[in-house]
Amino acid sequence: MKHLNFKKSVMIFSALCVAVGMISCNSANEQHSSTTETETDMVFSKGEKVTNDNFVGTVWLNYLVETDSIHNVNIGSVTFEPGARTNWHTHKGGQILLVTEGTGLYQEKGKSVEVIKKGEVMKCPPDIAHWHGATPTESMTHIAIGTNTNIGGAVWLEPVTDEEYHSGDHDHN
Amino acid sequence: MKHLNFKKSVMIFSALCVAVGMISCNSANEQHSSTTETETDMVFSKGEKVTNDNFVGTVWLNYLVETDSIHNVNIGSVTFEPGARTNWHTHKGGQILLVTEGTGLYQEKGKSVEVIKKGEVMKCPPDIAHWHGATPTESMTHIAIGTNTNIGGAVWLEPVTDEEYHSGDHDHN
Repeated sequence: MKHLNFKKSVMIFSALCVAVGMISCNSANEQHSSTTETETDMVFSKGEKVTNDNFVGTVWLNYLVETDSIHNVNIGSVTFEPGARTNWHTHKGGQILLVTEGTGLYQEKGKSVEVIKKGEVMKCPPDIAHWHGATPTESMTHIAIGTNTNIGGAVWLEPVTDEEYHSGDHDHN
Repeated sequence: MKHLNFKKSVMIFSALCVAVGMISCNSANEQHSSTTETETDMVFSKGEKVTNDNFVGTVWLNYLVETDSIHNVNIGSVTFEPGARTNWHTHKGGQILLVTEGTGLYQEKGKSVEVIKKGEVMKCPPDIAHWHGATPTESMTHIAIGTNTNIGGAVWLEPVTDEEYHSGDHDHN
């Protein structure tokens, strides 16, 4: 199985933007910036820099499986540079996160911020408002599996405030 | 989120055996053998050695998400040592493979053997007989995502013959 060429990557990335309900989306072909790990060490490349307003900070997306009406999932590898995170959002059909690199944060509305690390798994139930991202000082990569995509995708809400983002800082180590 | 303790790991492994339709299953607590990569380098640990008859050779399973009636998936990291492979089988709801380490083989009934490598993705459609495993000389690890598990799991068929397994040997490099 060959790697996807650039044209197909752009098509797939655009499809994801629709799938996850992003309002504005550009699949900019920017040069990848350096992180704590080189591309060659990563299982999946970082992909394209996300340029829409549903994230804060620098986020990269490699869309591995576009929304699929046979399997009813979509799958992407998402890399958050330190300080970066999603906005608050829900998933109509739920989502599962497999952390593949670094240390990050996850919070469901009304609960405390949780630290998530390489090798750990998080389930985001349908219709539960939550956010995820890197810690202030370390990047984090996870495989995000959107489940039951026949029901629907992401519903984007308000940005995570700095106060919310830093509310668990004392628990990061 | 803490790592699962051994008792829970055994429970989850047992649940997988049911989920994938294994006829006989023992979650033996054997010592892990050495491979080309150390446990500490791997994103997900190798897990438990598979001891049922649905595989040939040495195979390890780390069950990351047990079959889930909310998300309708199950997820496992599976490591095949050189020469190891599944028997022929189908999935009622399909399966997606994310190759995370090494080089392996994948074949659908009536088609040629395909070489699959770290970073690549394979979709196994519902009800299509297929097998997957390592090459004769290199180990392979993939994340296996069982999809539409509300429909059903794996249906196990006959072993892959040596002739079938080696039919693509000239294409491995």
